[in-house]
Amino acid sequence: MTAASGKGPTRIRLGFVGGGRGALIGPVHRTAARLDDRFEVVGAVLSSNAEKSVADAAALGIPKGYGSLGQMIRAGGLDAVAIATPNDSHAALAIEALDAGLHVVCDKPLANTAPDGRRIAEKVAETGLVFCLTHNYSGYPMIRQMRAMIEAGRIGKVHLVQASYRQGTLATAIETGDIPARLRWRLDPAKGGGSHVMGDIGSHVHQLIRYTTGLGIDSVMAELGAIVPGRQAHDTGQALLRFANGGRGQMLATKVAHGAENALAIEVHGDRGGLEWRQSRLDELTFLRNGEPQQILTRGSPYLEPLARQACRLPPGHPEGFHEGFGNLYRDFAEQVAARLEGREADPLAATIPTAADGLDTLLFIDACIRSSETESWQRVET
Amino acid sequence: MTAASGKGPTRIRLGFVGGGRGALIGPVHRTAARLDDRFEVVGAVLSSNAEKSVADAAALGIPKGYGSLGQMIRAGGLDAVAIATPNDSHAALAIEALDAGLHVVCDKPLANTAPDGRRIAEKVAETGLVFCLTHNYSGYPMIRQMRAMIEAGRIGKVHLVQASYRQGTLATAIETGDIPARLRWRLDPAKGGGSHVMGDIGSHVHQLIRYTTGLGIDSVMAELGAIVPGRQAHDTGQALLRFANGGRGQMLATKVAHGAENALAIEVHGDRGGLEWRQSRLDELTFLRNGEPQQILTRGSPYLEPLARQACRLPPGHPEGFHEGFGNLYRDFAEQVAARLEGREADPLAATIPTAADGLDTLLFIDACIRSSETESWQRVET
Amino acid sequence: MTAASGKGPTRIRLGFVGGGRGALIGPVHRTAARLDDRFEVVGAVLSSNAEKSVADAAALGIPKGYGSLGQMIRAGGLDAVAIATPNDSHAALAIEALDAGLHVVCDKPLANTAPDGRRIAEKVAETGLVFCLTHNYSGYPMIRQMRAMIEAGRIGKVHLVQASYRQGTLATAIETGDIPARLRWRLDPAKGGGSHVMGDIGSHVHQLIRYTTGLGIDSVMAELGAIVPGRQAHDTGQALLRFANGGRGQMLATKVAHGAENALAIEVHGDRGGLEWRQSRLDELTFLRNGEPQQILTRGSPYLEPLARQACRLPPGHPEGFHEGFGNLYRDFAEQVAARLEGREADPLAATIPTAADGLDTLLFIDACIRSSETESWQRVET
Amino acid sequence: MTAASGKGPTRIRLGFVGGGRGALIGPVHRTAARLDDRFEVVGAVLSSNAEKSVADAAALGIPKGYGSLGQMIRAGGLDAVAIATPNDSHAALAIEALDAGLHVVCDKPLANTAPDGRRIAEKVAETGLVFCLTHNYSGYPMIRQMRAMIEAGRIGKVHLVQASYRQGTLATAIETGDIPARLRWRLDPAKGGGSHVMGDIGSHVHQLIRYTTGLGIDSVMAELGAIVPGRQAHDTGQALLRFANGGRGQMLATKVAHGAENALAIEVHGDRGGLEWRQSRLDELTFLRNGEPQQILTRGSPYLEPLARQACRLPPGHPEGFHEGFGNLYRDFAEQVAARLEGREADPLAATIPTAADGLDTLLFIDACIRSSETESWQRVET
Repeated sequence: MTAASGKGPTRIRLGFVGGGRGALIGPVHRTAARLDDRFEVVGAVLSSNAEKSVADAAALGIPKGYGSLGQMIRAGGLDAVAIATPNDSHAALAIEALDAGLHVVCDKPLANTAPDGRRIAEKVAETGLVFCLTHNYSGYPMIRQMRAMIEAGRIGKVHLVQASYRQGTLATAIETGDIPARLRWRLDPAKGGGSHVMGDIGSHVHQLIRYTTGLGIDSVMAELGAIVPGRQAHDTGQALLRFANGGRGQMLATKVAHGAENALAIEVHGDRGGLEWRQSRLDELTFLRNGEPQQILTRGSPYLEPLARQACRLPPGHPEGFHEGFGNLYRDFAEQVAARLEGREADPLAATIPTAADGLDTLLFIDACIRSSETESWQRVET
Repeated sequence: MTAASGKGPTRIRLGFVGGGRGALIGPVHRTAARLDDRFEVVGAVLSSNAEKSVADAAALGIPKGYGSLGQMIRAGGLDAVAIATPNDSHAALAIEALDAGLHVVCDKPLANTAPDGRRIAEKVAETGLVFCLTHNYSGYPMIRQMRAMIEAGRIGKVHLVQASYRQGTLATAIETGDIPARLRWRLDPAKGGGSHVMGDIGSHVHQLIRYTTGLGIDSVMAELGAIVPGRQAHDTGQALLRFANGGRGQMLATKVAHGAENALAIEVHGDRGGLEWRQSRLDELTFLRNGEPQQILTRGSPYLEPLARQACRLPPGHPEGFHEGFGNLYRDFAEQVAARLEGREADPLAATIPTAADGLDTLLFIDACIRSSETESWQRVET
Repeated sequence: MTAASGKGPTRIRLGFVGGGRGALIGPVHRTAARLDDRFEVVGAVLSSNAEKSVADAAALGIPKGYGSLGQMIRAGGLDAVAIATPNDSHAALAIEALDAGLHVVCDKPLANTAPDGRRIAEKVAETGLVFCLTHNYSGYPMIRQMRAMIEAGRIGKVHLVQASYRQGTLATAIETGDIPARLRWRLDPAKGGGSHVMGDIGSHVHQLIRYTTGLGIDSVMAELGAIVPGRQAHDTGQALLRFANGGRGQMLATKVAHGAENALAIEVHGDRGGLEWRQSRLDELTFLRNGEPQQILTRGSPYLEPLARQACRLPPGHPEGFHEGFGNLYRDFAEQVAARLEGREADPLAATIPTAADGLDTLLFIDACIRSSETESWQRVET
Repeated sequence: MTAASGKGPTRIRLGFVGGGRGALIGPVHRTAARLDDRFEVVGAVLSSNAEKSVADAAALGIPKGYGSLGQMIRAGGLDAVAIATPNDSHAALAIEALDAGLHVVCDKPLANTAPDGRRIAEKVAETGLVFCLTHNYSGYPMIRQMRAMIEAGRIGKVHLVQASYRQGTLATAIETGDIPARLRWRLDPAKGGGSHVMGDIGSHVHQLIRYTTGLGIDSVMAELGAIVPGRQAHDTGQALLRFANGGRGQMLATKVAHGAENALAIEVHGDRGGLEWRQSRLDELTFLRNGEPQQILTRGSPYLEPLARQACRLPPGHPEGFHEGFGNLYRDFAEQVAARLEGREADPLAATIPTAADGLDTLLFIDACIRSSETESWQRVET
């Protein structure tokens, strides 16, 4: 069922920056890169201390460790790098890699500020290199099915969207206690961005809306802030949305939903039908139409659109998960890079991975939300 | 399991106004009144044509038919009336009944305008009679459990609320075709109110938030309107909410959610836990807490709070539904009226039925939403 | 949506036998009879003590109380009686009523023994009167949809059935403590039947299989008994099933499933598709086919078969429950009786209510299970 | 959250036998081995044609290809082999590997016949090498939670078990058409075993019951066969079960459940509570107790038992799936082998992987089912 089956594909020589031991998302990047045999991990920068980096790399089974990206680049032998460092460092690292002619996988959000994001996006455009922003939910087969069905007009003109991401991690004043370093930088506006909740999970909500519907968000009426008393970082962001096509919507990103377990959900309605999806049932997509039985579409099924089928690894009923979704982005990235290396056209189904331009879109959306929240007024989203 | 079991309760002599053949909600009122043997239906006004009213009453097994409320009142023998006519007539009818010393059950919304609603509420206060507004979701056992748990502090301070009511009935431009009279008056702003969707189902969302959390809504940022091109009536209303206690929330009431089947849902999070409920699983309430197993509480169970237990008729697993929820309001209303007639204290568990004051609250909330939508600004909700 | 709407139907004059205060199922019978205005309850036998019966009847709002069925019959003015007494009394009471020319509603199981059941069935055949056995799950709209779809060939030839009814009520040795009288007679083999679990809930499983599939059960390999040590009454019955058409299946009825809440479920597969239903989601029916999206059919929807639509009272999303299912049997019974009284053909959609013959089928099935369990061998089901 | 984090573990040098291109389960084995960096895949036998094997290995990124297991063994440099060939070849290959001092991972079922299975189990006992049978559902965190809770007495004495595995793959007479080779050998009794359905998926049901409850199955009353007319291979097996502790149960394994998508489910009830799990909600375990709210335990949660926590890779709400379950068996196997190589005690939480002895248990169970089905009588399960 995989695009790669049946041939021995070019392996992309990849170096990691960040995501060492104790990191949150680093291990997921490494697993994602390993799922399909399309990467050869050749080195890693896991610490600014070169010696420690070497030791950590060895512990993770990575052949070489370096003290900086520059050092790793100079060592040569790389096709691409994967960046999983704190948000504020993405721009410098990504630009350094792109300038060195390397393709880039970068953890989301693209950057902490729109100007930084724009610098990356412009550098990507200038170099023409492949850039993948790991908004991993775009890799889920049923999210891809949603996109393909909407694109094919299965629900008609999209006129209503509701999307939310709820966590309970900040439901109480945890900052007053001892928290791990990997959380601490996220809550620090300097490193984690001006609106923690929007950068961390609101960005996923925005990207999911954009990925599935393809609609531009014209303007927003948002309220961001800390609901838990005494907190500096934003723990909740909510917004009303006006879409470019006249549709309406609302979004919620919160970390104060006590007991919620990464409860990401999206619901899109058009004038011919509706689609509902939530992460807790990731292998199912509900298709609703007035006066018709509800349909539950399932991952791995033969009736799925090619974009979704290409993202399925196992038959229906044998569940896939977060790793495979992440892995699908890595695989599509590998396909695009391999096509460059082999001088051929990439599989068009590998073309939907989030790019730096998408990441900039999200940062401009967050900017508009921040302005809206501060001015208590509707604000246009810049482009 | 019913409060009424084990004794022969006073039967309330009830007359119906409206809700005749072909009506949407009339049959539900009649079933609700009949579930518990606490009412004796003695007459009905089913048409302004007295003769037709008599015939229709006979067809429904109601002893007498009248051409007007006045006529029915003058015939005597009534303790209470139930009003299920178009919204614009509620005020005149309710006040006429209250002036005649009759207790009143009235379909929601209380009225089309806040001034009309205020007149009813003031008349109720003045007469001291029992008034029940049939926001029937307040009669569901698990909604009562939600209220009781929040009141008891089980989720701590409420800081986030999300509630929505989605229908697909107006997902397309049905007005251009032939639609039944019972829909037509609802879509006519003169009879159905200034914001159709808010009066019809947004009112339920507001009341559900208020009933379960007990929180005042301080101010709103709303956008109401017609999403389907060419429509006059509002088909969608959404709002961001600021609660009096500093909490935040959002609500959505829409009729353009293609395929949605009266999808009413509410989620309330506090600093100690969260509660989730949706009508499609009405007998279940989910209790969420960080780091604890999710709990599914079920109707009929021995561990429920008294307010919920009193509303259960059947053991767990034998489902109840819409009729019983509606019937619980009628039963509580009957208990309050019977207590008056018998000169005793009413069961305190019968005290939570929505009143005219609650209905006025909802109309003031809708007013604030309309002002907010027109001015594109946050607006305070009057009290 | 009700068959009865739009006309004033003949009201059936009904007398109750059994089901007084403290009874388990009595109140459900009374609510079911009251839902549709098709019955006038004229009397009741609630105790063998005539005076107590009068008092109890008054407390329940029933005009007259009697000390025996004979006494109530002699008082005249009855079209039908509803019997909700312990199982061992059904035969005598039903035959007495039938002999008096009265139509009969009778609680399940039909009797404790097949010979008693056969006597009732023969009397019904002889008198030609209407007899309704309240296997209430047959009244659920989505169960009727299941029957209609199978009959219409939507899943092809039925080849596999799995059905179960799980309760937790006897998961521990409750008999050693104080239990209510309404449970005590059920656990006494003399009053509750030779296999408590099979008579009480296994009968529902059998009837549900028969009602939905229409298939005869050719033979069974069963094991019945008490799983909880020291118990006399059977608490669990399980059986492998061979159907007359060559299909296979299995059933389980148990009261030792700790925490199960009347968990009734059935799944039927044929060579063109499958159908799944469970009571905890009673308003949904899942239609499965290889290589097609799953379909969730919902109560109240326009695409349902007439047999199901006729059984719906509310629009989709406004839940119905146990009372309405029970009420549908009463309504169909009323329609059949009314047709007799009015000398017209009954609505053919009212024809599927369980009869005495169906009840006898179930008793013969239980007999075969008992024989099979005792002999540890496959046994044919008599007819 | 992984046992391996924080140190550089010994990498097990692994060779694959079978599971080449076009194979069903081969790619899953390779992914499972790769998830945790605990294996170094050094060679593979993918064809009896050495040249083809070399080419296929290269295409899969495996350094070396061989024409036979013997050839690969002689090449040296192996710690273990993973066998994913047709069932009838397991015994010879496993014994050859064990005789060469190699640890073994083997796909299920252990063999086609109990005598073959016993030969493997005896060889494992004799050599003392590590042997892992990939009954992958034992690797699911919530299945491990189920085992740990039952072992800890959380549901008391187990007295009722229901388990089933339903597929729709043989719901119609597909054999009459063109089917892929990977299905064809499975349906051939010589290669696929005497009872196809029992060997292929009934074995999972048996193992799941044994793994979670720890109970011995004393005797069975089974019926196995082909439900679809004209079929030789068994497509459905069902059985009543008597457990060594006096408990009862039933199981179903079928491939004629049209539309079912690897619907594996198990429900275990004891005298203090019950547990329910199904693959379509693999990250949830439902804990039921009379008179208590239902609890939904979720993967990744802090309250899980150590055996389950050790098997979790991601936080709650970020779904895991089939690959990770399989990977957990590989990881535990790696831990056991690494402990041998390093001369230390293995992590006791890695001790629950299915062994050859477990596989023999399953074959003896299937044998008893075959005897029971043929003789239409209860049969004891040998040990």
